[in-house]
Amino acid sequence: MSNINFYFSIGSTYTYLSVIRILDVEKKNHVKFIWKPFSVRAIMKEMNNIPFPKDKKNKVDYMWRDIERRAEGYGFFAKTPAPYPLSEFDLANKIAILGLKEGWGINYVRLTYKRWFQDGKEPATEPNISEIFEELKLDKKQVISKANAEEIEKEYLVNTDSARKNKVFGSPSFIVNSEIFWGDDRMEDAITWSKKNG
Amino acid sequence: MSNINFYFSIGSTYTYLSVIRILDVEKKNHVKFIWKPFSVRAIMKEMNNIPFPKDKKNKVDYMWRDIERRAEGYGFFAKTPAPYPLSEFDLANKIAILGLKEGWGINYVRLTYKRWFQDGKEPATEPNISEIFEELKLDKKQVISKANAEEIEKEYLVNTDSARKNKVFGSPSFIVNSEIFWGDDRMEDAITWSKKNG
Repeated sequence: MSNINFYFSIGSTYTYLSVIRILDVEKKNHVKFIWKPFSVRAIMKEMNNIPFPKDKKNKVDYMWRDIERRAEGYGFFAKTPAPYPLSEFDLANKIAILGLKEGWGINYVRLTYKRWFQDGKEPATEPNISEIFEELKLDKKQVISKANAEEIEKEYLVNTDSARKNKVFGSPSFIVNSEIFWGDDRMEDAITWSKKNG
Repeated sequence: MSNINFYFSIGSTYTYLSVIRILDVEKKNHVKFIWKPFSVRAIMKEMNNIPFPKDKKNKVDYMWRDIERRAEGYGFFAKTPAPYPLSEFDLANKIAILGLKEGWGINYVRLTYKRWFQDGKEPATEPNISEIFEELKLDKKQVISKANAEEIEKEYLVNTDSARKNKVFGSPSFIVNSEIFWGDDRMEDAITWSKKNG
């Protein structure tokens, strides 16, 4: 079975499409995705890359419309524009890192994205976050405290540094060996590559 | 048969993938593409959108690699990086407009892109342009003079203005009614849309 590194940030819009469809894709293609939350925000700042710039309104409007249409094409839906940008970007991703260690990470990320893009509820903010923890049967106080601990911060930095070294510049990015595939619409290219070269 | 407006500029890199595969796609899907050369450069300037920015080297490197891989996936190839940006951008596109009126436009655009991305020969510059006209059995002096005439300039501006009104911000863009699909990788989405809503 081929392994594909799935670098993503909760906060990236197109990542919605990937996290919703990725489990089906995995099953259908007999591949395994390794989930790696990182800070695309840190990397974009370093590149002076501004997401959703105000002087590019047509492009921004297009991205929302494209996400909506692509979601429909995959058989689900997106209510756009979703709240953007996130006020608790880092916390949202550090919780994901903790969750992936503890076994509830994928459910957390998918539920967070569903609520963000289907119900307009901003990730890692109240009351949404409490409702998510309730649904996942997690103790909020404990999770937040662990997510803010040094160990998780470190892993977040390690993932971000590893993304940087792999020349990742956006989310989602799929990496097979040292080959990067950027964007939800390149998930299949990454799979094809991993089967040929994995 | 559904009609899809194909807005493009010679000078756009990803457009290489589209112009090479578009005739096969057209035949296979029973659709018709209406070729509309326009100035993506004028529109990008208005949006303060800089292609291939120097501070985004990883992204630029990725784009060349992505074009190379996608070309292979389609069954042809790309030698990247190709010469960029073009010194004779407007002339290259005005010749395309003339050619589309006179019946040799599609051959000219495809041949220009093949030589650009397969042999590293810059569009609309010497000696490449003379060799292209020779291959197409065209009189160079006459073509250049007609391409620079007011009538063609006007049509170029009309196409660019129509792209602007349709909120096009990049090349290639496929338009079905007022629905835009941006990028070679959205050609199939445009076709699906045109069959459902065309």
